[in-house]
Amino acid sequence: MPTKKDDVYGDHTSHAFNDELMELKAQFLKMGGMVETQLGESIQALIDGDGHLADEIRANDKKVDQMEVELDEEATLIIARRQPAARDLRLIVSVIKMVSDLERVGDEAKKIAKLAIQLSEEGQAPRGYVEVRHIGTHVLTMLHDALDAFARLDSEQALRVKKEDKRVDEEYQAAARTLLTFMMEDTRNISRCMNVMWVLRSLERVGDHACNIAENVIFMEKGEDIRHASMEDAEKVVGG
Amino acid sequence: MPTKKDDVYGDHTSHAFNDELMELKAQFLKMGGMVETQLGESIQALIDGDGHLADEIRANDKKVDQMEVELDEEATLIIARRQPAARDLRLIVSVIKMVSDLERVGDEAKKIAKLAIQLSEEGQAPRGYVEVRHIGTHVLTMLHDALDAFARLDSEQALRVKKEDKRVDEEYQAAARTLLTFMMEDTRNISRCMNVMWVLRSLERVGDHACNIAENVIFMEKGEDIRHASMEDAEKVVGG
Repeated sequence: MPTKKDDVYGDHTSHAFNDELMELKAQFLKMGGMVETQLGESIQALIDGDGHLADEIRANDKKVDQMEVELDEEATLIIARRQPAARDLRLIVSVIKMVSDLERVGDEAKKIAKLAIQLSEEGQAPRGYVEVRHIGTHVLTMLHDALDAFARLDSEQALRVKKEDKRVDEEYQAAARTLLTFMMEDTRNISRCMNVMWVLRSLERVGDHACNIAENVIFMEKGEDIRHASMEDAEKVVGG
Repeated sequence: MPTKKDDVYGDHTSHAFNDELMELKAQFLKMGGMVETQLGESIQALIDGDGHLADEIRANDKKVDQMEVELDEEATLIIARRQPAARDLRLIVSVIKMVSDLERVGDEAKKIAKLAIQLSEEGQAPRGYVEVRHIGTHVLTMLHDALDAFARLDSEQALRVKKEDKRVDEEYQAAARTLLTFMMEDTRNISRCMNVMWVLRSLERVGDHACNIAENVIFMEKGEDIRHASMEDAEKVVGG
């Protein structure tokens, strides 16, 4: 049975400790917001062929990297200083893991921005952008919902994000098949279609990272590690 | 200035604590060995068209996942029980991060095994396998060296691993260009070449994960986060 202290966030003997945890959460959500923007803009830069925006995204990735380093430091410092246990410790360890997911989403956005520049330089109306826009919107929503689930410690929403991941994988498979068809129709499409294929792959990865964040939210809330559990078992953990 | 306690691993007031840290290291290295085997065998299954071996790899991935969960639990328990600081805490936090890298390498091995099955079913002598073998050997060595650097807490070896990552990226780019050429030569090559392309991409990712592990070793040893530092700055940290 969890003790009362284990039950409620914020019910700490030390107000300073509580403030530090709140600040860690706020900083994590700030990093999440930055990464969401980077990803959304990278998809926009690709679709609009906007090289200037793509350059900005690549430059801004340094700020995301910087936040990763700072958040890791802060989380480790809190552990050393406050010697947390139970729920608090789960929160801090989860933040350390999720920060690495956010940084990787930032990297995928940077990669998409780089491909946007290549594709815009090659000119010619591209194929596969419908698919990019569709999957891009889907994974952006997943990322947003995962961060929101973290902000509100909402395991049910986190579970919904985890369920979406399978759909994104299916959409990605279908889009990859479509692009293969374009490539086979005309060998002159191959190089451009490959670049679009890498964008799709990056987006599919973002879905995985959003899913990782969602799994961590469930771990924080429920104390159960459902990363490799079946969907059925995950539902039992969240519902029970 | 680091205190003496901060200076030397194993110089703890509590022998039990020391034993726990040693056991955590040993378990991490065991997981590393499993993942190395999975990756090596996945490349072998691909090149030999060995569907039976590929099936085994896919089944064994569950054991890797299980180790991830156990190591995370153990690391978190040690933090709660021992309230470590300084070097000890850096070791534990780094293990938590590196475990996630190992699990992802395991996932890449599983993906390669799946592609090995597809490619072996399609028959016909494949193109791009020279490149797969070459890059595969390279990233396997990087992974092995990164784990070895962790076992011996050898920052200089870790830095060498980090330097290799750039070469792997270059090899990957060259191999991707070669495969593009095959695809353009004959559209009947496209589908198979795409599968080989995904294998190369997985291998390139393994290089990234080996690099992450190496960066963590330097962090444990030197207390400096060099993930986003220039190679010049990383050299100063390791050499100084």
